[in-house]
Amino acid sequence: MEKVSAFLKIQKNAILKQICGNCGLPSSGKKDLLVNTICDGILHLDDRDPLALKQSKELGLPKDVRLLSIDLGIKNFSYCKFVLPKGDYNTVPEVYDWSKLNVFDYYNNKSAQKPGEITATLIDDYTPNRFSEIAYHIATELVMAEENPIDVILIEQQRSRTTGSSAVQEWTLRVNMLEHMLYSTLFTLKQSHTGLNGLQLVTSSPKRMSDYFINCKNESHEENPTKRQKSSVIKRQRIKLVENWIDKIQFRRSEFPHNTPFIFQQTFGKKLKNNDPTPKVQKRQSKYIFDLIMADKHMKGRQKSDDLVDSLLHGVSWFSWMKNRMILRDILMNDPNKLMDTLIIIENNHSKFTDYQEVD
Amino acid sequence: MEKVSAFLKIQKNAILKQICGNCGLPSSGKKDLLVNTICDGILHLDDRDPLALKQSKELGLPKDVRLLSIDLGIKNFSYCKFVLPKGDYNTVPEVYDWSKLNVFDYYNNKSAQKPGEITATLIDDYTPNRFSEIAYHIATELVMAEENPIDVILIEQQRSRTTGSSAVQEWTLRVNMLEHMLYSTLFTLKQSHTGLNGLQLVTSSPKRMSDYFINCKNESHEENPTKRQKSSVIKRQRIKLVENWIDKIQFRRSEFPHNTPFIFQQTFGKKLKNNDPTPKVQKRQSKYIFDLIMADKHMKGRQKSDDLVDSLLHGVSWFSWMKNRMILRDILMNDPNKLMDTLIIIENNHSKFTDYQEVD
Repeated sequence: MEKVSAFLKIQKNAILKQICGNCGLPSSGKKDLLVNTICDGILHLDDRDPLALKQSKELGLPKDVRLLSIDLGIKNFSYCKFVLPKGDYNTVPEVYDWSKLNVFDYYNNKSAQKPGEITATLIDDYTPNRFSEIAYHIATELVMAEENPIDVILIEQQRSRTTGSSAVQEWTLRVNMLEHMLYSTLFTLKQSHTGLNGLQLVTSSPKRMSDYFINCKNESHEENPTKRQKSSVIKRQRIKLVENWIDKIQFRRSEFPHNTPFIFQQTFGKKLKNNDPTPKVQKRQSKYIFDLIMADKHMKGRQKSDDLVDSLLHGVSWFSWMKNRMILRDILMNDPNKLMDTLIIIENNHSKFTDYQEVD
Repeated sequence: MEKVSAFLKIQKNAILKQICGNCGLPSSGKKDLLVNTICDGILHLDDRDPLALKQSKELGLPKDVRLLSIDLGIKNFSYCKFVLPKGDYNTVPEVYDWSKLNVFDYYNNKSAQKPGEITATLIDDYTPNRFSEIAYHIATELVMAEENPIDVILIEQQRSRTTGSSAVQEWTLRVNMLEHMLYSTLFTLKQSHTGLNGLQLVTSSPKRMSDYFINCKNESHEENPTKRQKSSVIKRQRIKLVENWIDKIQFRRSEFPHNTPFIFQQTFGKKLKNNDPTPKVQKRQSKYIFDLIMADKHMKGRQKSDDLVDSLLHGVSWFSWMKNRMILRDILMNDPNKLMDTLIIIENNHSKFTDYQEVD
């Protein structure tokens, strides 16, 4: 620890920031802060990271790592579920559920209604009393109802103010309420259910995720008016990136070693592509998601799928960052002279996933 | 139900609003809405109200009703605990705990720390991850650690915008976060612990509470600039009201029938007045509260005790409203012609508590 810290302190700040960027760690501040961030985020990995934990020998055979990634919204709540088989980070995680919902509809259609129970249909009721019910419903359906316990939940960090102004939109306050309630519901469930003991609640930063995937070569350095335009360009790039991956996975078959940073679990992937009309809701929903993403590729309505894309990207980035943290931890502790080479390899591997030809 | 509704529909709106005001029900809207509000709030009392429930014969002997009233804040979080012995609304509730705290200090000093557990001291960490821990700690300490289960929890409704402007203070967003997290923590605990099955979470309206106690004869009808002044006058009146009650209870002894809408439970009341220096923290804290309230009576620093006063007043108003709802339900169902007389009796009884001579 002391040795690593001393080694990092003699590196240039640019290198330290490069490490942070590849590990999903905040990359602001002076050298001392950066060194602390890296040591905290990488060296203590074993204590906190389920991916590392599950691999540790104490637990015997390696186990799957399951992750739920949430992109918050009320009418556009999106989530994506991943499993990394045997916690093996030399492979890519598999998506086994991916969806988008309106939380009111989701609550109103809850299947777990007990017979005889009278439940008022909720429409646009934003009181904390009602919303805590909705948050509880979401948490139980998405987490507690899972056959295999989820290890990590990513909740996208919400911003109150769009451009640093003092004004806060009413809608933003409501999404914030849902965010905070989900945290407390999940934290409380974790305390009460031994099965959730190891559950990690992680705040995912939309900016860090976006910076990781989108190479900002097109970035213009103009003032405020372009801020929104810039964000919209980057959003479109994120959607294209995911379209490109899905295209590879579904139509050109994924190669091994994978040329996409995730694959679909076999059953889920089939549902996505299935064109047969089928009575099964789940099948229809998966088909709908696929259509939504792929339709956006050829149509104008790009806004529709950005929530979906973001819940996927948050999950994908988490697995990638954890893998990089483990690689860099080993290098820093055992072979620090190879740091530069390792960073190059890491970034080359990453760009295999993020570089693509636009086929518009 | 039909009969009562028909009877209410032929009453003047002023009467309907009078009923609402005395029962803590929202008194806005046209006649139809007012009638619905009253029917909803009063006639279905048995189904929801623990005070009525506990008295119902099915449950055998009457049981105590316990209430926790919370006035939210981060550096000024205040709560007050009441018990209504045997749920008998012909008597007044007893206060058995009443305090004010900084939630960070409260969390840092938590007594329930397991041996060997390393807990970072929290200072000004407003991330949802940390705050969900704080909310959980508050909920377990104030609710779960109680020997006798609490039946009702009042949480003061927070307002985002002070004067309808679009600006929202950073601090307000943080208090809102705590509010929402407390709801979700308590709702989730309620689902997981059978002992909390009957727990009622109630949003208490600061305006409705203040209107109930403060007779707005001094109310000026000027425009915006006076809005803040008005609120400050009313705040001072609330503090004076409580000072007056405590003065009666502690120094002139409470008469029977009580001339205050609450009394202190014997042990707690003794602690409040106790002048002996004592090592017991709890004793010191109660003494501190008492000093804070009574000091304000003779000093300028009135702001200090308004959180304390409000958590008490919310609880007091709830018991009073529940009592009035039950009285009015019986009248409306069995003897509607006595409605006017009953309203007069109710308001006379109430003014016994709220009228006082200023002894400044």
